[in-house]
Amino acid sequence: METDQTPPPGSRRPGGRTARTRAAVRDAVLTGLAEHGYPALTVEYVAEHSGVHKTTLYRRWGSLEGLLADALVLAGEDSWTPPDTGSLERDLRALAREVVDSFSDPAASAAPTAFVGAAFQSERAADALRAFYTERFTRCEVVVERAVARGEAPEGTDAGAAVRAVSAPLFLRLFVTREPVDTALADQSARATATAVAAGAYLTPSNLAEPAEPGS
Amino acid sequence: METDQTPPPGSRRPGGRTARTRAAVRDAVLTGLAEHGYPALTVEYVAEHSGVHKTTLYRRWGSLEGLLADALVLAGEDSWTPPDTGSLERDLRALAREVVDSFSDPAASAAPTAFVGAAFQSERAADALRAFYTERFTRCEVVVERAVARGEAPEGTDAGAAVRAVSAPLFLRLFVTREPVDTALADQSARATATAVAAGAYLTPSNLAEPAEPGS
Repeated sequence: METDQTPPPGSRRPGGRTARTRAAVRDAVLTGLAEHGYPALTVEYVAEHSGVHKTTLYRRWGSLEGLLADALVLAGEDSWTPPDTGSLERDLRALAREVVDSFSDPAASAAPTAFVGAAFQSERAADALRAFYTERFTRCEVVVERAVARGEAPEGTDAGAAVRAVSAPLFLRLFVTREPVDTALADQSARATATAVAAGAYLTPSNLAEPAEPGS
Repeated sequence: METDQTPPPGSRRPGGRTARTRAAVRDAVLTGLAEHGYPALTVEYVAEHSGVHKTTLYRRWGSLEGLLADALVLAGEDSWTPPDTGSLERDLRALAREVVDSFSDPAASAAPTAFVGAAFQSERAADALRAFYTERFTRCEVVVERAVARGEAPEGTDAGAAVRAVSAPLFLRLFVTREPVDTALADQSARATATAVAAGAYLTPSNLAEPAEPGS
């Protein structure tokens, strides 16, 4: 899947003939991130672990930031689709549990965590992360669209906000407050988001009759 | 306000006589973080900008990580209290808008952002951040407790989860997906959280009659 954003020079797809090279480079970037984190990762490391010469890496990807950005573009090119259980709350629960599961495994979460950390130090990594998550959450919106079609959620629901809201309490704890996450928390977030969606709390401003002001 | 956690050696309060030294050191740490970020901040920088000798810094705080942790302990020792507007949604809205406001000012947000980034590279910074946010969110819980007392929220509401949920979509965009935040997003999050709280979606597990399963 291509992002519709113009990719930065170093992250353009090198073409079909070099897809294997690109994948090998991506794997080396992910391994390096998992082992050392962003500030310690070097182009030398990527060259050594991918078998691709350093001058080739610089020519094609420009810099370590270019390598990082392209690894994230490639990570987004998967065939993942959101769950379709027939109920909004169950779909949201499955999405939230997926976040918990993927970040509960230290080995599996090291590289994604390093990407989030790298964005604090590199504008280019931040841009790549934004593109990755924007596309990922856009894919999730169908969960809310199906709920609208089933009559579980009102027309005009801000699907993008709802699918972000269900993951947000997990990401908050994982990457900001550094508190533990578990399945119970995922389920609570799904319950809260499904309840708010059903009640129309995520209607887009033009669909909100008036600002809700309980107790006033 | 003291945290009830035993502080790490380097971050123990040096005592009243040296409170000004501690504040000067803290200010130098914050300025350095805002200017250079965590990986580039050095004990030399802190010495130069605080006027406190490097050997004193090492003796009292042990390391750069100790300096960072203590700056965060000191940042938590303020007299901030959450809003009390008489309505849960308005209180939550004020909390959420405060997050938007404080991170919309690049100068004011540089140091807090650098703290969140530093936690990706330092376990000690992560521990300090956890202590800071745990205490901060505990202070916010009164907003939900007052709503329970007013009858706006059911008894047994998980106040800690609710006050985290209202900020979570903002922190997600600021520090993970790198998307913009604004007042409308803060208000949407407050509306959604207040709606979910009122409907009992944040009841603690022992207060939940059965797992909510809309549409099943």
